[in-house]
Amino acid sequence: MAGAVGAPVVTLLTDFGVRDAFVGVMKGMILGICPQARLVDLCHEVPPQDVEGGAFILGTACGWFPPETIHLAVVDPGVGSRRRAIAVRVGGHAFLAPDNGLLSYVLEAEEPEAAVEITNPAAMLPEVSRTFHGRDLFAPAAAHLACGLALDALGPPAAGLCLFPLPKPALARDRIEAHVIHCDHFGNAITDLDEAAFRRWLGEGDERQLRIRAGSARICGLSAAYAAACEGAPLALFGSAGRLEIAVAGGSAVAACGLARGQPVTIERGSA
Amino acid sequence: MAGAVGAPVVTLLTDFGVRDAFVGVMKGMILGICPQARLVDLCHEVPPQDVEGGAFILGTACGWFPPETIHLAVVDPGVGSRRRAIAVRVGGHAFLAPDNGLLSYVLEAEEPEAAVEITNPAAMLPEVSRTFHGRDLFAPAAAHLACGLALDALGPPAAGLCLFPLPKPALARDRIEAHVIHCDHFGNAITDLDEAAFRRWLGEGDERQLRIRAGSARICGLSAAYAAACEGAPLALFGSAGRLEIAVAGGSAVAACGLARGQPVTIERGSA
Amino acid sequence: MAGAVGAPVVTLLTDFGVRDAFVGVMKGMILGICPQARLVDLCHEVPPQDVEGGAFILGTACGWFPPETIHLAVVDPGVGSRRRAIAVRVGGHAFLAPDNGLLSYVLEAEEPEAAVEITNPAAMLPEVSRTFHGRDLFAPAAAHLACGLALDALGPPAAGLCLFPLPKPALARDRIEAHVIHCDHFGNAITDLDEAAFRRWLGEGDERQLRIRAGSARICGLSAAYAAACEGAPLALFGSAGRLEIAVAGGSAVAACGLARGQPVTIERGSA
Repeated sequence: MAGAVGAPVVTLLTDFGVRDAFVGVMKGMILGICPQARLVDLCHEVPPQDVEGGAFILGTACGWFPPETIHLAVVDPGVGSRRRAIAVRVGGHAFLAPDNGLLSYVLEAEEPEAAVEITNPAAMLPEVSRTFHGRDLFAPAAAHLACGLALDALGPPAAGLCLFPLPKPALARDRIEAHVIHCDHFGNAITDLDEAAFRRWLGEGDERQLRIRAGSARICGLSAAYAAACEGAPLALFGSAGRLEIAVAGGSAVAACGLARGQPVTIERGSA
Repeated sequence: MAGAVGAPVVTLLTDFGVRDAFVGVMKGMILGICPQARLVDLCHEVPPQDVEGGAFILGTACGWFPPETIHLAVVDPGVGSRRRAIAVRVGGHAFLAPDNGLLSYVLEAEEPEAAVEITNPAAMLPEVSRTFHGRDLFAPAAAHLACGLALDALGPPAAGLCLFPLPKPALARDRIEAHVIHCDHFGNAITDLDEAAFRRWLGEGDERQLRIRAGSARICGLSAAYAAACEGAPLALFGSAGRLEIAVAGGSAVAACGLARGQPVTIERGSA
Repeated sequence: MAGAVGAPVVTLLTDFGVRDAFVGVMKGMILGICPQARLVDLCHEVPPQDVEGGAFILGTACGWFPPETIHLAVVDPGVGSRRRAIAVRVGGHAFLAPDNGLLSYVLEAEEPEAAVEITNPAAMLPEVSRTFHGRDLFAPAAAHLACGLALDALGPPAAGLCLFPLPKPALARDRIEAHVIHCDHFGNAITDLDEAAFRRWLGEGDERQLRIRAGSARICGLSAAYAAACEGAPLALFGSAGRLEIAVAGGSAVAACGLARGQPVTIERGSA
């Protein structure tokens, strides 16, 4: 992928929905400060105040953006309380978010190159409300970054970032207990089992012999694509997030198999 | 906030939803005429034909955009009838909309600098349908404005704009009767009571002693932030729209307290 | 409409919804390769795997975009199977899509000027997953086109494109049997009867005397605009797609008259 040329990309992820103009107002703020910013919506349908759900989407999506992208993420039940507003540089991208765990997946694999608390009044609105920091603080700060302000000009270094413990699969010799961490628009249930860990566990084993249980589904072996099973049949595969997913060909695994975030998904070696 | 540099911002607010490509088609029309326009969605989930709901969102959002922004608003149950299409300049911005009250909040505080009826055939499609003026008339006219056409080239001056009476709180000595005018994505109920009017009424009174009733909620005093109350408790605060809101920490006041647009919210001085 | 000036327009139509960041990720991929692309969402709420529904929206919308627009359409239940990925040039626009019928309406009226199978590895990600060709194949290919790559550099010519038979009205001397092909956000039911075919059939007949049946609705004559009937009354008119629509003034014809895709709508000459 070519490096970023020209205007910076600024992505937006919120739980603001699309019934109001909250997102539009943030974009107005950004374009008023940095007219050349190129704005991309990541997602605004994070369920209200679902920091963990937003964290997963942000962590899965951000890596597909060009170098120097600025990610603005606001799922912020603590707005107006003493939680910090932070800006973090990691993997060649900048992230602005409340310090409430929203960057947990982003920071899972990599130490941040820099992390600051956003306190510089010159990078925010003259009057910051206690109910809408997306508009009054995060959008202006992102726009100033997009216009070339250095990240560490936003405020002093921030230590001890709030990161929640990420769900991890339990790997035993003949059995993995994984967990559903996200249910997507198609009703696919994505787990915390990534493909590299799975391959190490599988070793010389035969993936066609695996027995997988997820909600009411009993699945034999892995599939390579959604279209590989009969219409309506549940299947398991490593999906576009690099993680084990439970899906139903032409349907919703969440609805058909009774799956939800947090539920266990077990994988056992078959008796070959 | 810096002034607009470079390409003009054009915002779009409609009741067109996102299940069809109506909004995309309007953007195609704009970019065909004015390729350098920067398009920002304000909201497309105004309930179908809810002119009053759209008017509130537009009025609350537009002030956060840079100078010279062009706002295109289409909630238009009367499309194809004799209602006028208008363009208005106010507060350094241009607004294009059907003349049906959609600009009522925009024009609440300020007299328009100019108002015209859009009649110039050169600023619209050669053939204007009677069902989709967003595409055939408003989008081309907005694009021509964005490319530098003067507002008064769109048509003759328009007098007697259609504005509906805005709800107003009734302020008595010891009691305010306000009204819910918008329920947002989070289930916050926003009222017609703005903070300046409230402060004048409160005078030397103690805001912690106020008794507030909204649906089934009984609230004592004002809060400063959503996170200031216990999870699940209703609270009242002045929100990002500068108006009194009823909210529930970590939940929906609309659902929990049975609130809807039009309902009264009363504020009474406590016996201090 | 002026020709395309400057950066190319790339539209996106998918069934990816807005609860995840799938669409945002595709945009990140495009902007990483072609930073100057101007991205426009056509629709992301095509019902999951509803190729026919997506085909109608794409076919109706694409004609309103400027010359040289690139349309990226992904409704792709067969992703990872042997279905081809194709790129087609028609009407001065380029289309990228799975070869599953998604271009059926686009290609209804016009033969493609060129059609290729997308196979050039230089135009896609080094590693293409079997679950997300929107990100790994279609978005990069669209971005390379937007940056000037010739369409036939994407791969070898593709013959025998998959096109499904489009519904067609049956026209008899005194009666037309049309069919609902799309239900829009407002609850209007759009049929397969286009205005040109209707006018030829009507000849010297009187459109005010027509008797129209659609679900539970019995309608006399055509209307010119949605606002032409009393609130709540069903009406029939030729809408913005150039096709006969059944609507309810101020309401939803789909809900009020029990309409759905595939249902018949009959038009009979009245006894004048």
